[in-house]
Amino acid sequence: MTLARKTMLPTNPQARALFEEIATWPIVDPHSHIDPHRPAARNLDEVLGYHYYTELAHSAGMPASQVAAELDPRTRAGNLAEHLERIDNTVQHSWLMEIARTFHDFPDERIDIGNLDILYDRANHELDGEDWDRRVWTTTNLESVCLTNDFDDPLEGWDTTRYIPCLRTDDLVLKLHEPAVIERLRRCTGEDVQDLASLREALGKLFSRFTSKGACACAISLPPDFVPRRGAPRRAVTPIRRAIQGLDLRPDEHAEIRATVFWMLAEFAAEFRLPFDLMIGPVRNVYPAGVAGGRDLFDRRVSLHDYRELFNHFAGVTFPVSTLSPDAAAELVAYSWIFPNVLPHGHWWYSNVPAFIRADLTARIQALPKVKLLGYYSDAYKLEFVLPKFNTYRRVLAETLAEACVQAQGWSEGRALQLARAILLDNPRRVFGRNPLGSPGSI
Amino acid sequence: MTLARKTMLPTNPQARALFEEIATWPIVDPHSHIDPHRPAARNLDEVLGYHYYTELAHSAGMPASQVAAELDPRTRAGNLAEHLERIDNTVQHSWLMEIARTFHDFPDERIDIGNLDILYDRANHELDGEDWDRRVWTTTNLESVCLTNDFDDPLEGWDTTRYIPCLRTDDLVLKLHEPAVIERLRRCTGEDVQDLASLREALGKLFSRFTSKGACACAISLPPDFVPRRGAPRRAVTPIRRAIQGLDLRPDEHAEIRATVFWMLAEFAAEFRLPFDLMIGPVRNVYPAGVAGGRDLFDRRVSLHDYRELFNHFAGVTFPVSTLSPDAAAELVAYSWIFPNVLPHGHWWYSNVPAFIRADLTARIQALPKVKLLGYYSDAYKLEFVLPKFNTYRRVLAETLAEACVQAQGWSEGRALQLARAILLDNPRRVFGRNPLGSPGSI
Amino acid sequence: MTLARKTMLPTNPQARALFEEIATWPIVDPHSHIDPHRPAARNLDEVLGYHYYTELAHSAGMPASQVAAELDPRTRAGNLAEHLERIDNTVQHSWLMEIARTFHDFPDERIDIGNLDILYDRANHELDGEDWDRRVWTTTNLESVCLTNDFDDPLEGWDTTRYIPCLRTDDLVLKLHEPAVIERLRRCTGEDVQDLASLREALGKLFSRFTSKGACACAISLPPDFVPRRGAPRRAVTPIRRAIQGLDLRPDEHAEIRATVFWMLAEFAAEFRLPFDLMIGPVRNVYPAGVAGGRDLFDRRVSLHDYRELFNHFAGVTFPVSTLSPDAAAELVAYSWIFPNVLPHGHWWYSNVPAFIRADLTARIQALPKVKLLGYYSDAYKLEFVLPKFNTYRRVLAETLAEACVQAQGWSEGRALQLARAILLDNPRRVFGRNPLGSPGSI
Repeated sequence: MTLARKTMLPTNPQARALFEEIATWPIVDPHSHIDPHRPAARNLDEVLGYHYYTELAHSAGMPASQVAAELDPRTRAGNLAEHLERIDNTVQHSWLMEIARTFHDFPDERIDIGNLDILYDRANHELDGEDWDRRVWTTTNLESVCLTNDFDDPLEGWDTTRYIPCLRTDDLVLKLHEPAVIERLRRCTGEDVQDLASLREALGKLFSRFTSKGACACAISLPPDFVPRRGAPRRAVTPIRRAIQGLDLRPDEHAEIRATVFWMLAEFAAEFRLPFDLMIGPVRNVYPAGVAGGRDLFDRRVSLHDYRELFNHFAGVTFPVSTLSPDAAAELVAYSWIFPNVLPHGHWWYSNVPAFIRADLTARIQALPKVKLLGYYSDAYKLEFVLPKFNTYRRVLAETLAEACVQAQGWSEGRALQLARAILLDNPRRVFGRNPLGSPGSI
Repeated sequence: MTLARKTMLPTNPQARALFEEIATWPIVDPHSHIDPHRPAARNLDEVLGYHYYTELAHSAGMPASQVAAELDPRTRAGNLAEHLERIDNTVQHSWLMEIARTFHDFPDERIDIGNLDILYDRANHELDGEDWDRRVWTTTNLESVCLTNDFDDPLEGWDTTRYIPCLRTDDLVLKLHEPAVIERLRRCTGEDVQDLASLREALGKLFSRFTSKGACACAISLPPDFVPRRGAPRRAVTPIRRAIQGLDLRPDEHAEIRATVFWMLAEFAAEFRLPFDLMIGPVRNVYPAGVAGGRDLFDRRVSLHDYRELFNHFAGVTFPVSTLSPDAAAELVAYSWIFPNVLPHGHWWYSNVPAFIRADLTARIQALPKVKLLGYYSDAYKLEFVLPKFNTYRRVLAETLAEACVQAQGWSEGRALQLARAILLDNPRRVFGRNPLGSPGSI
Repeated sequence: MTLARKTMLPTNPQARALFEEIATWPIVDPHSHIDPHRPAARNLDEVLGYHYYTELAHSAGMPASQVAAELDPRTRAGNLAEHLERIDNTVQHSWLMEIARTFHDFPDERIDIGNLDILYDRANHELDGEDWDRRVWTTTNLESVCLTNDFDDPLEGWDTTRYIPCLRTDDLVLKLHEPAVIERLRRCTGEDVQDLASLREALGKLFSRFTSKGACACAISLPPDFVPRRGAPRRAVTPIRRAIQGLDLRPDEHAEIRATVFWMLAEFAAEFRLPFDLMIGPVRNVYPAGVAGGRDLFDRRVSLHDYRELFNHFAGVTFPVSTLSPDAAAELVAYSWIFPNVLPHGHWWYSNVPAFIRADLTARIQALPKVKLLGYYSDAYKLEFVLPKFNTYRRVLAETLAEACVQAQGWSEGRALQLARAILLDNPRRVFGRNPLGSPGSI
């Protein structure tokens, strides 16, 4: 199948030429939610169940109950498909069509109630199992994809050079007071976590286990009101003990625990030479009546100025930073410009819209060292989404390079492609490269 | 007169073709300040008196006294015209030229002191009265226009299917402590408003009267520091009684009153199934020495996160939202993406600049369900402004569709026009449609 | 040498035609850090030592020690040059190449360790002294450049009609408590500064001396948390005395001093009819381990709403305003739209990136009176940077005029050039024009 049959080509001839070359490259995907035990979608419901579709369909009038977990997959997919026409203008919808065309040879222009059964049947790979995973991997030309692993994930049963582990730490920082979290931590580390000292021991074991499996990064998403500050073990020792014992905590104690655990994680990131992936902005459960995965939003009044102490103190830790609020993107350009250890990462979630990517990417390319530009990550839950999401980005990149570099600066096509390669391949490989011995993820 | 003679056509051929089609459609205008008893300008002074011209001319050096209310119209128009050259680069100035060409057959390239008299005479329709209103209406191809009515407007004496009432509620929420407001409320409802209970009765009568006249919405503009919260009648009962009695209030009492009255209005919007039009951001009278209508500005540090309780609680109320600070636009995209009852509305006031519209509109089209996109409103005080303001928007829309949909996504022209129709006609008709029986304005 | 050989020409033919004309105009530069005693770079180290290069190279991995002050110039230049390849995508790097081509006839496409010696030798003008300054001035076609002078600068020994003094006041407002500042103030005014009254006398003498030398403006950069407020001499009298005596101060006393001194400066700006140049946003020393000049950043949560009292009170003072955070640019458009004495100034520092300039400039041109648009300033430390930085801006201006005015509004090329002339020449000349007798800088 030709490229043009699968995905849109840019109209600008220079952008088109760049895109056609870039589209042949392998994909290095530094952040996803792929389940390595079941990476590809075994049926269409797993594709349509992506929160981008359920939340947009719900936003456009579909009751959340129509995509409830207890429905059978075909019914759920049908309910969702009935609402696709209402969102067929969106970039998210374009990913769906690209999946249908690329992976399921779907010939129609639209998915509707009339052709859904055909597509559902074509997308049914329940019996193909891992063979289907491999086919999607190959078609995507995927080189590696970083995961999002719970801290107690055993990290076993898959090829960790392809599906690279990433230590996700939200639970440890934000939910240490929940008994289940402590219990999981004890179980997976064998450490009898009772206080700050034993907590530190346990965290060290997590980093040890993850880096021994070639982890790409330690990662966390942080709410807009979180302000990192140097841990004060003396002040934190009692609140942390109380949290571990499941006692009630005052708000200032919660804050002390969060700050202290977060700072400890950064210390381990330094010790184990692991990048610390910061995803700044989300407020969880702003819309509790929403569909699963479609309840979080943000408060745009956030500033990286709150992170200055962290960036200064951990000069040896690489911080790939994603910001959620699109209007915060320009500040990240400035902070990446000054701090050697701050790198602008991908285009995340509500910022993952071509118009926002375009504005942000142009500024990054014009103002930041090329060795620091981390292009894109899919954030995908199923393997099928990696390709269309990356193609959206690669198209914007090709257009940006054509206009801002080739046309505005007189660059040759070869020079533009070299920059694209740094952004898409060289930098992510270097920063997130597998480092079993804890080699640095720094630039 | 050909289209090109009246308004600019886009240069991009695809955008031009789209615009030429869209320009033939009727206009549905969901928000204005038109006086239904005197909708069109009877003379040029009423055109040049639009605050966009007086405030820009004043900003460019004209003393406010030169457009004082006590001057005679011709003098005032002359004073203003002398300063037009200083603002002839602006989009606001382009509306003026389009009015002169379209409605007054004005042939010159500029308005200056040399040709002002000719234009003034051509624009003089004092004697034509309602006939002139009808001619402007017809030339504009206007289908309906929503008004901004004081809560005590009797809503009589005009065709409310064309000039659709809208219940503006700023006074009730923000100025309940002013004796004149309570007096007006008593007079227009016949309710002896003395306390929270009788206030509620009176508000109910307002909604009843407005919906019986086919009101399109209940509307309010809110300052950046206003945070809606669930009313606490028990806590509010005393402050509200004290406000009604004209007693002095502490700041926290003012806040309690505002929150409580606002929440009650939302309850009535739910009960009467009326959209609640939120215009978020303005701070009144920031520049008190300015011209009338040119004294308000904003504080950009505002977030829709402050509105989460409102949006969650009133799931059945449709909230068309306008934000004043251009940099807040991206957040509205995200909130409209998640909340079914939040709709992105128009491009308002300081955000009503082609560069801002273009950036915002592209993101809306790429990320939001098409059934939720509410294109544009004129915000006009005189009927003549509806057409040039809508043409500015329709041009940006045509360019955006040409580039982001036809060229970047391979859409047919027909598909792009369908989306334009949803944005400009279908959605505003559905959301703000006349509903004498209180039928829902929801999607 | 042809224009195309020295600098990039826009691709769009209309933009190219506009640029080719604009590039022949003289340059009026309303803000720089040029040293009038040694304006041009006498060697390549003085070019490569510009903080844009040292901070970007450092951000890309170069240790700060490699550009330490104690190194010899050739070594330092070599160290820096080794890292240029890592930032060769940036607009800052393009200025360097334009300097090499324009002023040093450098023929190569890149600067690297292989050709650095050649360039170093060509750029060596230690022996040419002032003759080299004059050659750079002439090649740049510079008409005048405003400086940044310490308040105790004697302003002697150079032609102040070309190198126009500007009274920089950061030290007075933010560091009055430092003994050295008071000492400098005493020495340069001959005033025995001991209290508020004698401080006011001394400040008056500064304004008198600067305006007698034709100063273009009084200027200050202010942190994001600074809120101007009307001085309360009675409240300030004790803190100011204590500050002058070098006693310890409470935070509220520091705040009182800052507010009071700032307000006094504005009073003198009014009295001496001098523009007061506000540069809003920087936080100093956010990254203390950075290279010299590369340690400052900002907090994006800032609003011009904090300046309303100042703008209202000093209606007679012209305030050219620069904002540091790119996302604050749209708010400045609104404030310049309403306040006659607020003018949007240049595109500053972290906002001085073509993508940000383009978005901001388009909005300014579409929404603000043309007589208020102050195009650009170089912010340069060495004369060689004025031309390439202005050319970057002039290219963006030509593209913006071509697209937003010629193509979108049907303007003639002549009309677009007239607007360009207002933006680049007429307005800066009028606002910052030499005024030995204190003639107004207002519009």
